[in-house]
Amino acid sequence: MKQSKLFGKTLREDPKDEISANAKLLERGGFVYKTMAGVYDYLPLGWRVLEKIKSIIREEMNTIGGQEVLLTTLQPKERWEKTARWKELGEEVMYQFKDHSGREIGLAATHEEPLAEIALHSIHSYKDLPLFIYQMQTKFRDELRAKSGLIRGRELLMKDLYSFHEGEEDFRRFYFGTVDKAYKKVFQRCGLDAYVTEAAGGSFTKEHTHEYQVFSEAGEDLIFYCSQCRFAQNKEISSLQVGEKCPKCRGEIQSSKSIEVGNIFPLGTKYSKPLGLFYSDEKGNKELVTMGSYGIGISRLMGTIVEVHHDEKGIIWPEEVAPFKVHLLELKSSQAAVKSFAEKLYQDLLAKKAEILYDDRSDKTAGEKFADSDLIGIPWRIVVSEKTLEKKMVEVKRRDLTKVEFLPPAKLFKKFNV
Amino acid sequence: MKQSKLFGKTLREDPKDEISANAKLLERGGFVYKTMAGVYDYLPLGWRVLEKIKSIIREEMNTIGGQEVLLTTLQPKERWEKTARWKELGEEVMYQFKDHSGREIGLAATHEEPLAEIALHSIHSYKDLPLFIYQMQTKFRDELRAKSGLIRGRELLMKDLYSFHEGEEDFRRFYFGTVDKAYKKVFQRCGLDAYVTEAAGGSFTKEHTHEYQVFSEAGEDLIFYCSQCRFAQNKEISSLQVGEKCPKCRGEIQSSKSIEVGNIFPLGTKYSKPLGLFYSDEKGNKELVTMGSYGIGISRLMGTIVEVHHDEKGIIWPEEVAPFKVHLLELKSSQAAVKSFAEKLYQDLLAKKAEILYDDRSDKTAGEKFADSDLIGIPWRIVVSEKTLEKKMVEVKRRDLTKVEFLPPAKLFKKFNV
Repeated sequence: MKQSKLFGKTLREDPKDEISANAKLLERGGFVYKTMAGVYDYLPLGWRVLEKIKSIIREEMNTIGGQEVLLTTLQPKERWEKTARWKELGEEVMYQFKDHSGREIGLAATHEEPLAEIALHSIHSYKDLPLFIYQMQTKFRDELRAKSGLIRGRELLMKDLYSFHEGEEDFRRFYFGTVDKAYKKVFQRCGLDAYVTEAAGGSFTKEHTHEYQVFSEAGEDLIFYCSQCRFAQNKEISSLQVGEKCPKCRGEIQSSKSIEVGNIFPLGTKYSKPLGLFYSDEKGNKELVTMGSYGIGISRLMGTIVEVHHDEKGIIWPEEVAPFKVHLLELKSSQAAVKSFAEKLYQDLLAKKAEILYDDRSDKTAGEKFADSDLIGIPWRIVVSEKTLEKKMVEVKRRDLTKVEFLPPAKLFKKFNV
Repeated sequence: MKQSKLFGKTLREDPKDEISANAKLLERGGFVYKTMAGVYDYLPLGWRVLEKIKSIIREEMNTIGGQEVLLTTLQPKERWEKTARWKELGEEVMYQFKDHSGREIGLAATHEEPLAEIALHSIHSYKDLPLFIYQMQTKFRDELRAKSGLIRGRELLMKDLYSFHEGEEDFRRFYFGTVDKAYKKVFQRCGLDAYVTEAAGGSFTKEHTHEYQVFSEAGEDLIFYCSQCRFAQNKEISSLQVGEKCPKCRGEIQSSKSIEVGNIFPLGTKYSKPLGLFYSDEKGNKELVTMGSYGIGISRLMGTIVEVHHDEKGIIWPEEVAPFKVHLLELKSSQAAVKSFAEKLYQDLLAKKAEILYDDRSDKTAGEKFADSDLIGIPWRIVVSEKTLEKKMVEVKRRDLTKVEFLPPAKLFKKFNV
């Protein structure tokens, strides 16, 4: 992609109405546009990051046998009255209104009720279980305070997985074994270290649930944890104190603000009971299906990555989620050879399927280009200038390191495995 | 994918509340679930078809230089008051309501206003033009009558492209040259023959716009056309009559009901003017940006494909949009060798990256499996049974042909290029 044509320009100044680093940097870098508090448009750079995160999640969900679906946003009131959540969610976060015919509609803030209703037509016998269904879809939540950029959105992209089981034992195997491993892979591939944290169940369950928490000053949660054995509890349920001995390994308890990037909920029969979701076991007895639900905030993940991976100059994208792998800067020169060298390198890298953003802008100074490159945060920066041309080399630098290398183009291809 | 594990079961009977063939077949085949009139959930089979259509559209949009974005559903009233469409769309199709704080919100039924507003920050000079921005995103439209299945949705998946130009001439080149060609490729790859049809501008423009119409009895439009030169007009603007001479080539005018699968709109400065979207030309003069918008209904396309490609037994998917390429049926047998032959063939085809649905269900008769296979409509059907096992062959049949072939597995791989 040529940067001269890229939709979404970098801004010199921080946006005035943002306080979180992720919102400031993503807006300044041209990744997102703010339509309202907690409601962001994704411009081409931001769209690319979202798609990278989605494809990591999709891979890991498919690996554990997840089947992808796409459920609806518009929800009929009657469906949510069966579980008493029309009123409960309506008072908190669910947008509810009447359509032109006067029918009451809600915007889905989560999808337990719809999916359990659909499952009524697909689950009859124990042979139909277990079943793992997920989607990556936009959720709507009228959050009271949406001031943390992409961390707390009113319109947010989410991966939600729902599992259906013959009983608690099968559920627990999936919950602690399979999903937990898949989640850890997702976060690790996104460059994040997440602590599995015990937490309260919220409106979903009375049991402890488990949150995946990433340390960050931008977080809205406070957790107590032991770095030795990685035991962690959310403050809301914890009686631990900093400096105490860890109840699991006798290590020392510390605390940190943190961002909840994912969660896993045991649902038991909370939804299968009111919705009448039964299966016949091997003996022909009718039993209630045991359910679990498992979320990852995709747009929140994008915000969290920026909170964790940035410096005073801008974002530092982990390689797997970067919008491009390579940022090629052509510095202004009166010598036409600089442009033609850069242009040829760009075409060669494109032909080798490298993901590359080419800063070909003719009205920007070297200083502006370096500053934009640091702000956008693509992992590898390549510079072509009069100086590098003289040596028949290019200058190569990783965004997260200070070391600069000079390489001939042929070695560059090898370095990037293209 | 093993069919015994597939989420979404086939139904023997037509759903009672549907009148259109696409809704009946897609629900019976387990592709979609109906949440409300015009609001459908996509189950794994349906999700796969949507993704196939999306990737065709994405390829063709990227080929013409489109940049993909994702804009928001939640829209502030103030933005749409600038173009007077808050009231206009609100009376017709836009869902509007107040959030918990009392702020007035609308659900985006289209995205001219948001994108033009965002473009204010990205378009300054003639060097920033032309620009082609698209998204594939869910639209919400409170349609008075939503009774045509996926053809007229209240929650619908749409590709919308917006173009920004220095003036009419550049716009017309893109509109009639570039986009028209890309659209024809999209529809042709989806197995549809679309007529470019002159139509009224609706709420967007007073000029003629152009619709892409596919002949179908399920269509809500009536068009007059000449099959010789492919001139076509929508009844709403046409003074032509059946049997008349074509005004372009003197061929004979015919008429047909049809489905509008896409449209292209000249917008002129209708949106750039009220939103103040200017650029500086080469002489430094401030000029209004000329815009165009271009839609393809993705979920509608899925419904249209079913309307055009089905018979009394079920759907007949064109190869590029089929949920799977191959449907492997293992017929019930007391010989364990039948199952192991089918299982091995499935694993071999999977290893060769063939997209395959394997009907391994042990509780279904041969008749039920054949009926389901015809209903689901995967292009190639392979049968493994006692009869084929005896010959060390498999039975191969195309969904759209009656001819049956017997082939050894090795030749099968060759046939499918795997």
